[in-house]
Amino acid sequence: MKNLLEIYARKKRDIAAIERVLEESVYSDHSLLREASVHLLKAGGKRIRPVFVLLSGEFGTYRLDTMQNVAVPLELIHMATLVHDDVIDDADTRRGQLTVRAKWDNRIAMYTGDYIFAKALGVVTRIPNPAVHQIMSKAIVEMCIGEMEQIRFFFETEQTIRDYLLRIKRKTALLIAISCQLGAMASGAPDRVSNRLYAFGYNVGMAFQIRDDILDLTGTEKQIGKPPGSDIKQGNITLPVLLALRQPELKDKLLAELARIHELDGQTDVSRFLGYIRGSDAIRQADALSQAYIDKAIAALETLPDMQAKKDLVEVAHFIGNRSY
Amino acid sequence: MKNLLEIYARKKRDIAAIERVLEESVYSDHSLLREASVHLLKAGGKRIRPVFVLLSGEFGTYRLDTMQNVAVPLELIHMATLVHDDVIDDADTRRGQLTVRAKWDNRIAMYTGDYIFAKALGVVTRIPNPAVHQIMSKAIVEMCIGEMEQIRFFFETEQTIRDYLLRIKRKTALLIAISCQLGAMASGAPDRVSNRLYAFGYNVGMAFQIRDDILDLTGTEKQIGKPPGSDIKQGNITLPVLLALRQPELKDKLLAELARIHELDGQTDVSRFLGYIRGSDAIRQADALSQAYIDKAIAALETLPDMQAKKDLVEVAHFIGNRSY
Repeated sequence: MKNLLEIYARKKRDIAAIERVLEESVYSDHSLLREASVHLLKAGGKRIRPVFVLLSGEFGTYRLDTMQNVAVPLELIHMATLVHDDVIDDADTRRGQLTVRAKWDNRIAMYTGDYIFAKALGVVTRIPNPAVHQIMSKAIVEMCIGEMEQIRFFFETEQTIRDYLLRIKRKTALLIAISCQLGAMASGAPDRVSNRLYAFGYNVGMAFQIRDDILDLTGTEKQIGKPPGSDIKQGNITLPVLLALRQPELKDKLLAELARIHELDGQTDVSRFLGYIRGSDAIRQADALSQAYIDKAIAALETLPDMQAKKDLVEVAHFIGNRSY
Repeated sequence: MKNLLEIYARKKRDIAAIERVLEESVYSDHSLLREASVHLLKAGGKRIRPVFVLLSGEFGTYRLDTMQNVAVPLELIHMATLVHDDVIDDADTRRGQLTVRAKWDNRIAMYTGDYIFAKALGVVTRIPNPAVHQIMSKAIVEMCIGEMEQIRFFFETEQTIRDYLLRIKRKTALLIAISCQLGAMASGAPDRVSNRLYAFGYNVGMAFQIRDDILDLTGTEKQIGKPPGSDIKQGNITLPVLLALRQPELKDKLLAELARIHELDGQTDVSRFLGYIRGSDAIRQADALSQAYIDKAIAALETLPDMQAKKDLVEVAHFIGNRSY
């Protein structure tokens, strides 16, 4: 399997161009806002959303400036939600870097998020198609609902896998789905194509978040750029945990550990809890569901014309399904 | 002088229509988001921004649906910043009502703000003019900078009156300025007119914030809907305080009190501090500056055609300059 850089190679110049526009977009005369935004930007990320915009745009009339105007606000929206989530999660590191709230404080992080969000709006307006704006606005609304639902379900051991899946759809999958959809729409691809790409993105997004949730339980700090077990410390019960809770021999032990972690507000060692999960079959089951989403994603592309972009999308999907960072 | 309801009387139906669209806009199937947003909406406010949109719209071809599409996002942006500010300020009440963060918590308030912001974006896109979007986006960016500057200057007794004025321009005056400007622009009024209305709104906005800052020092909890002295408890040094600090016989006493309040992180009785300010000439001086802004606002309208809307704008300006709530 290729790694992400190899898949990106063909799009290297265009990704570099988007990187520059991202930097220009958050530029501010205000030193603190500029520093916080650039810090956030430099902390990187996989730029999955811009890459999906670029690859999807090849199914229509590809123009880099149009693609930029779609990719940049999507990545900015993603960044804005990250800073705000780090405030909610009391997160100190992300991708091995200090978060804005840790480097500065929660107040700075709040306004940096608002600021980046406003900058996203400024870029969006370069796209003359109001349907694009509507789709973005609705996706952000759903993302907020997803985040609120996450809070509501903290330490809720009675939640269903359906609750979990709906939550990660809102929190993660939708923005990736519209990245693909809008890339195609903005390049004038027919609705049939942009709808297929939406389905691709949705399924990849689901797999992406499930994989993320697995890595939080099984990864090392070096791999995932934050201490493992961060999710459970804040009460976020993810798919592997729900699956492990279904195993009769584990259930009581897990509930006791969860009650203890809840009681201590997450300020405790969670290695015993992680041990239970890692030792169970839950990780394998969660991985299988992630793989099923990847398969569905790839199947969604079936009727699309056989182009290099389609091959690349398949490669990215495989990468996401197997990534360990 | 007329009160606000009397001035609004002529626009009563249109304001009621905007109120309905505001409610529809924040509607969500998600009960918590809906409740938090409606709570915020019902807590009211003077709807100064929508009224300025409506009155400014009369200088062009007035159409209620166009006016709604401008007024609603501006009021939503204002609301979103209020919820986020209440998080930063640890505020428990606003306009005599519990804040979202007090009724629920900081996390809910954060996402409610993001949600309302996204909803604003959804309404904005009904306006086909990208220049309008750009103006809104820039105003939000400036508002974020204003809020960041406020944090940076907390308990900073060496700041100048110029620092203060620049901050309230960003924090308050700009959004009121563009409410007037965009009302006129959206109704197709000539640039000359929308520019004059921008100047009017800017000056009214400056007076509005100065008046707000005076009331926080001199008002009763009943009048202002929150405990007096809230600004200084959080370290926000406003115009009357800066003016009082210039008075040699007061300076040392004020600095000692400020150091004490800072030391205790605002968790202390501030009545002695309020007493110093109220007993000084600073309130009168601040009031004079607020009045000067009102005069400049009214002068900005001079060359505009003599219409009822112009008379109403003058009345609103006078109300704002003299309000005690």
